[in-house]
Amino acid sequence: MKNKKSKRPLTVGDYLIGRLKKLGIKHIFGVPGDYVLRFYDMLTRSDIEVVGTTREDCAGFAADAYARMKGLGAVCVTYCVGGLSTTNAIAGAYAEKSPVVVISGAPGMAQRQLNPLLHHRVRDFSTQREVFERITVASTALEDPSRAFEDIDRVLNAAMRYKRPVYIELPQDRVLSVPQQRAVRKPEAGAGDADVLAEALDEAGQMLRSAKRPVILAGVEMHRFGLQDELVKLSEQSGIAVAATLLGKSVISESHRMYVGVYEGAMGRESVRRFVESSDCVLMLGAFMTDINLGINTANLHTGQCISASSEQVRIRHHVYQDVSLGDFVEGLISAKIRGARRKHPTAAWAKLRKYSVRPRARITTDRMYQRLNHLLTKDTVIIADIGDALFGAVDLVVRERTEFISPAYYTSMGFAVPAALGAQLARPDLRPVVIVGDGAFQMTGMELSTIAARKLNPIIIVLNNVGYGTERVIWDGPFNDIYDWQYHRIADVLGAGLGFEVNTEGELEQALNAALENTEQFSLLNVHLSVNDHSQALNRLSKRLASQVRPTSGGKK
Amino acid sequence: MKNKKSKRPLTVGDYLIGRLKKLGIKHIFGVPGDYVLRFYDMLTRSDIEVVGTTREDCAGFAADAYARMKGLGAVCVTYCVGGLSTTNAIAGAYAEKSPVVVISGAPGMAQRQLNPLLHHRVRDFSTQREVFERITVASTALEDPSRAFEDIDRVLNAAMRYKRPVYIELPQDRVLSVPQQRAVRKPEAGAGDADVLAEALDEAGQMLRSAKRPVILAGVEMHRFGLQDELVKLSEQSGIAVAATLLGKSVISESHRMYVGVYEGAMGRESVRRFVESSDCVLMLGAFMTDINLGINTANLHTGQCISASSEQVRIRHHVYQDVSLGDFVEGLISAKIRGARRKHPTAAWAKLRKYSVRPRARITTDRMYQRLNHLLTKDTVIIADIGDALFGAVDLVVRERTEFISPAYYTSMGFAVPAALGAQLARPDLRPVVIVGDGAFQMTGMELSTIAARKLNPIIIVLNNVGYGTERVIWDGPFNDIYDWQYHRIADVLGAGLGFEVNTEGELEQALNAALENTEQFSLLNVHLSVNDHSQALNRLSKRLASQVRPTSGGKK
Repeated sequence: MKNKKSKRPLTVGDYLIGRLKKLGIKHIFGVPGDYVLRFYDMLTRSDIEVVGTTREDCAGFAADAYARMKGLGAVCVTYCVGGLSTTNAIAGAYAEKSPVVVISGAPGMAQRQLNPLLHHRVRDFSTQREVFERITVASTALEDPSRAFEDIDRVLNAAMRYKRPVYIELPQDRVLSVPQQRAVRKPEAGAGDADVLAEALDEAGQMLRSAKRPVILAGVEMHRFGLQDELVKLSEQSGIAVAATLLGKSVISESHRMYVGVYEGAMGRESVRRFVESSDCVLMLGAFMTDINLGINTANLHTGQCISASSEQVRIRHHVYQDVSLGDFVEGLISAKIRGARRKHPTAAWAKLRKYSVRPRARITTDRMYQRLNHLLTKDTVIIADIGDALFGAVDLVVRERTEFISPAYYTSMGFAVPAALGAQLARPDLRPVVIVGDGAFQMTGMELSTIAARKLNPIIIVLNNVGYGTERVIWDGPFNDIYDWQYHRIADVLGAGLGFEVNTEGELEQALNAALENTEQFSLLNVHLSVNDHSQALNRLSKRLASQVRPTSGGKK
Repeated sequence: MKNKKSKRPLTVGDYLIGRLKKLGIKHIFGVPGDYVLRFYDMLTRSDIEVVGTTREDCAGFAADAYARMKGLGAVCVTYCVGGLSTTNAIAGAYAEKSPVVVISGAPGMAQRQLNPLLHHRVRDFSTQREVFERITVASTALEDPSRAFEDIDRVLNAAMRYKRPVYIELPQDRVLSVPQQRAVRKPEAGAGDADVLAEALDEAGQMLRSAKRPVILAGVEMHRFGLQDELVKLSEQSGIAVAATLLGKSVISESHRMYVGVYEGAMGRESVRRFVESSDCVLMLGAFMTDINLGINTANLHTGQCISASSEQVRIRHHVYQDVSLGDFVEGLISAKIRGARRKHPTAAWAKLRKYSVRPRARITTDRMYQRLNHLLTKDTVIIADIGDALFGAVDLVVRERTEFISPAYYTSMGFAVPAALGAQLARPDLRPVVIVGDGAFQMTGMELSTIAARKLNPIIIVLNNVGYGTERVIWDGPFNDIYDWQYHRIADVLGAGLGFEVNTEGELEQALNAALENTEQFSLLNVHLSVNDHSQALNRLSKRLASQVRPTSGGKK
């Protein structure tokens, strides 16, 4: 095989870069290190742009957001000191099904003879790979050039098929290796048995047709597998309204007439809860049934009235159909031209409609801030919510288009949002990120604004400053929940870029947001001072529920 | 068993805290999260102080430095989002034999029934433990209260014995569990066979006595196992001079009359290289023979003339004695009252003696900065060097007392130094840290100054600002080695504490250092602007050697 441009033989490095490009990768995030410099050099001369981050975990979060926006993301780091610094970010991508390719440099095979103590080595040369085997869906170490092309295909196919991270380890003396044999592409695994699909569709169709109060509950996999158009079509054609899980928020435009709102058990809006829980047939599509998605297990759904299709299986009432593809199942439902019973449903547009008039001298509160933000959003905004009230409060924001709400709502790793803004805006330069992040989370990764400044991106960062871990204060308070206060708005001085604002009142919020909207060539950061006891109502409800699990002796459910 | 203070029965949490206290732990580093809040609450009411950090990896680095200073360190974090964020720091502690106890909260056993998708979960409930099994020397999940005390003893004993990290997972509903049975302490494994020890000592003694040019090469394990006094005694009594490995630097006071200097093959000082390599009997004590320790394999030592004792084995010439304790071997050599042949040796005090007179308007260089720093150090200083020229340049600093030089010189993870200063100064409040850190490394973890500010600690932070990854530029340059410039000295404004200085000239360096010395109640940060092509000589030599490995086709050794 030849490299088309240079006519030189296709190397392992060339092949990997070519495959990534073909899968839509235009940016790769990471920090260089000596074991990966040769491959970095090759990347620099390719069409894929290397985006250096301050830290490797930030590269992981950025690539995760990039994958959520574009279908695949990638990080490239050095051995152990680099790779092991991404494990939390990659574990989060695994948990939430975001396909990120981790490429790690490694000592050359020639260097490993006699088993020397090379720098960055932990225990064995296999240690890092063994760690990643636990948090990825497929992995390979490209030690044998003759298998390298096939291995690259295998792991990249797994990333696309399962929408989960994969791991590729590239010894530095294999980057330029040229396999002697041409890689053999194995055919992809079949999409399942037609008879199984037909029976599942038949049963689901009957349930939906005979239901009096059907509803669709859509989850994040509908986005991961690119089934948003099909979701809209199914809902419009069948007349069955759509609620979303928390992780799936914005999988359908929240101003769509068939959209009900986010369902999260007793934690969410009462009208949505009633509408979903009174249904006699809930069609769950691509939904992860996690504790936070379900309002910390306050959801009241009866398995005997549910059809649940995900990338893993189709479950109807109490039985399971294996090997049915989610896409085939949804397509099948559309082809079946089901008409569901008509139901009047709540709409999510309510929040948008709440009037907001500034009370200039009033102290700003979480609730008022979200009301104001709701008027800021347009179809050109992507909301990126970190954990805690950044997420729970943001649930009521009405997202104008689909999949413009990003949050690690299941794995809930603090520090996701700022680096995710970097990844999201490189993936979709047409969208402007509005980042909502708690002060504790900001302290973890907020300095990734450095790369945002370097690239002249223009997110609006809203730091919810209550000088501590607000969610935990509600669960179990102690001095450990207090953090050291930063003058977050002065980070602009450290970076020599961006605009910082200090916000105490509604008037200051108004001024800062207007100035931020005008400030289109660089980031804006709002340091929003909130009272220690000011939480969204959702957080209050959720945290009390969590507290009852932490303190089983205090009367809560164990 | 009863808790002495409260007369209530001793819980798993109580027992763990009691054992940590007994082993000298007074501070525990971490970030709280809901699965670990109950244990945090218990810690808050104990004599162990919880030190909250901005990020979990910073907690890991701080605990590593704490362990290097005090013999044991500990971190306490929540499940997965917390634990997996420490993997790089803990892997570094494993590689460099620093005993850090990782305590991770976990979902309660009661919550795990029916295998639910609880937040922070990655794949299985065992995923995090499986990851840590690969980067610790012992691990346990305290799921069964009746085994908990025994398991805690087992893993803590392993940490003390092997000087490596261990992992303890504590489900949140086991913190208050009271075991029905009393924990049974197993006797510790024996310290080896007396006959093996005697034969090894006999052979080593003969070699040392008959050698004409003996030398001791001391490594970091002499510190880890608390054998510094024995090292001095052995050297003084035998008249055999001591060189140190890079990782072992300061294992003996560098102004001691028997100290030769740091030996790192062709990378180090020529006089030290000649003295060590011309020896006909090198007694290596507790030395890791890693690539960077050995000057990237430029060391020229002949196995047939070496005695090498480490915690793992004693090797004399080409054969091995198993199960000999390092301490017993060193004690045995002292008891044998060996007198070695006299040799005139170089001393390390040379650097101290180089006169430094300020040329106020001269642009500051790496070399001149280190010359100046050498005059700053006292016996009350601990030097903490990050990676790159922060380490290589610092080799020539003369450490006044023993073990007051800390650096991850084998694992070489960037970002170690600032959080390590936090751990080191809490471990030894009598010492003032001087932190030398590259700009790239500072961008990774430098904001841990937040916790340093919160606790009013007073390290002096010297940021080597060459706007990029300097070491990598020498190995293989490309645009990926450039980083975005920060106004590091303005971080004091963000933190509302500390003093920041911008340094371009020798005069400014002088002023800044003098002001920093006076500034004893808070941190000082010097943003030292260096030319892009200004490196220490050691880095130039080392990087070229690394480059020859990265680019085997360019004529270097493959």
